[in-house]
Amino acid sequence: MLTLEFIREAHARIAPHVHRTPVMSSRAFNRAAGREVWFKCENFQRAGSFKMRGATNKILALGAGERARGVTAFSSGNHAQAVALAARDAGTRAIIVMPEDAPRSKVAATREYGAEVVFYDRQRDDRERVSRDLAERTGFVLVPPYDDYHVMAGQGTCALELLEEVRDLEAIVTPCGGGGLFAGASTAAQGISAGIRCFGVEPETGDDTRQSFLTGERVTIPPPPTIADGARVQSPGALTFPFVQRNAEDVLTVSDAELVEALKFLLFRLKILVEPTGALGVAAALFNKLPANIRRIGVVISGGNVDADALARLVQ
Amino acid sequence: MLTLEFIREAHARIAPHVHRTPVMSSRAFNRAAGREVWFKCENFQRAGSFKMRGATNKILALGAGERARGVTAFSSGNHAQAVALAARDAGTRAIIVMPEDAPRSKVAATREYGAEVVFYDRQRDDRERVSRDLAERTGFVLVPPYDDYHVMAGQGTCALELLEEVRDLEAIVTPCGGGGLFAGASTAAQGISAGIRCFGVEPETGDDTRQSFLTGERVTIPPPPTIADGARVQSPGALTFPFVQRNAEDVLTVSDAELVEALKFLLFRLKILVEPTGALGVAAALFNKLPANIRRIGVVISGGNVDADALARLVQ
Repeated sequence: MLTLEFIREAHARIAPHVHRTPVMSSRAFNRAAGREVWFKCENFQRAGSFKMRGATNKILALGAGERARGVTAFSSGNHAQAVALAARDAGTRAIIVMPEDAPRSKVAATREYGAEVVFYDRQRDDRERVSRDLAERTGFVLVPPYDDYHVMAGQGTCALELLEEVRDLEAIVTPCGGGGLFAGASTAAQGISAGIRCFGVEPETGDDTRQSFLTGERVTIPPPPTIADGARVQSPGALTFPFVQRNAEDVLTVSDAELVEALKFLLFRLKILVEPTGALGVAAALFNKLPANIRRIGVVISGGNVDADALARLVQ
Repeated sequence: MLTLEFIREAHARIAPHVHRTPVMSSRAFNRAAGREVWFKCENFQRAGSFKMRGATNKILALGAGERARGVTAFSSGNHAQAVALAARDAGTRAIIVMPEDAPRSKVAATREYGAEVVFYDRQRDDRERVSRDLAERTGFVLVPPYDDYHVMAGQGTCALELLEEVRDLEAIVTPCGGGGLFAGASTAAQGISAGIRCFGVEPETGDDTRQSFLTGERVTIPPPPTIADGARVQSPGALTFPFVQRNAEDVLTVSDAELVEALKFLLFRLKILVEPTGALGVAAALFNKLPANIRRIGVVISGGNVDADALARLVQ
């Protein structure tokens, strides 16, 4: 079960293998946002996102026998690269299942970390089925992208570090895709600081978690067209959603245009590269989506993996 | 005169007004470069470059009467923004002289920091003459971009911080435009660590300092076409050049293509935005321009001011 204690254990386990990422702040940003904001910069994490924390925790928590066989994951995004690198760190093999039309740069990055990539046909095959079959055939352990307590605990370790560094935060804001980061970070934050207010942020067109939060049950939406590719999830996770219900004060949304503005502010003023999904919380702070009485906010910047063509399009 | 003691005084003077910028390193970069490299990240400095250090030191070292009158500078680049912001910090006025065809973003940024911008015609007017006339007419003190001991000392403070944080560096590498950063940083470094080897880096087409270093006298070249706009200087400074002669083991050059590769490595792997000029030292490390027996290198990343259109062109 996901508790502060379980997240602290995760932190002790993964600390030698992940970066303690910097916490940044900017007078210019605070002026623009009208509050004090601290950024936990997981774009500087190994493999470029917070996903490295959860993948590392999951793999290191396996029994020696399981770990020795290898791991598998289905993802064409940051989770793929994280599982590949965490597996290499742990001295084991990884097979990553990706759609045939995955961006070449993502395939290349995953292979660069030493993983084998297996393709499936997005039209013909069921992704989860392909992965499960593979896991059964090979005996490799599946590392889920969010619906797993070890994965959620690993993701939550970034909030431990943030709250250790910045005292008296009144709120913590994270991007919300499948909900693993929100579940872990909000559990860690509220375990340390009982009254802290927690917010997840989604793209406007991908508001499955917001709809679920408002109706009280997991809603499934069509594939969302947002530029925030890490939040193109169609429903919150079965294991993560209860933490959204319990810990979230609200689930906020931002438009793609607001995401681009936030990304550009971070790039040209703070000089850091953040991917659109990574800027969800930043956009919520910049465009004043949070209750007015919150003055001191911690925002998790979840990742920084953007390729050159996408970046050129985004900034112009 | 420029000495370690004078640079330490500058550091004490400016410390409350400038960022102590982070020192970063990257396993991926070290693997690519084949050495251990530490980056002093002045792209995170206030106003986006190391120029803030020199401008602040110069303005704060003025007598109260002089300072109260105001300051002036001629620059369309980072020096303009730095003088504008440092003047505002010091509660005085700044007039910045810029060519009529200066990029709008630079003009806007300088005005945003509270400076008045005066234009001159690049074809008709002599820039230095315009500035000197202005200084005489208004009584405003001219803040030179590099040929001034207080400016050079301010720039050198970044090397103090770098050497405090990373022990046993064998070499320090800086971009070289007018030479103020190299003069200050090399004087600080060799004052602290007598045997440290110092290298300036220029763009291939803007090798005025290299030519001067090799011939032993200040050479003037035609306006260089390089993308490293901060190093489009036609000759080293009268005051800075003696420090190049005394402190430099060599003056290196990199091509514009190498600069772009270095900029992209920093952006997409380290997730930090660096302007072409700022990447001169990084490119020298990445493309193996330094003697093979140097293992531990400190590289000053001098700035991160790039506008959106320029960035889009550079990364594609």
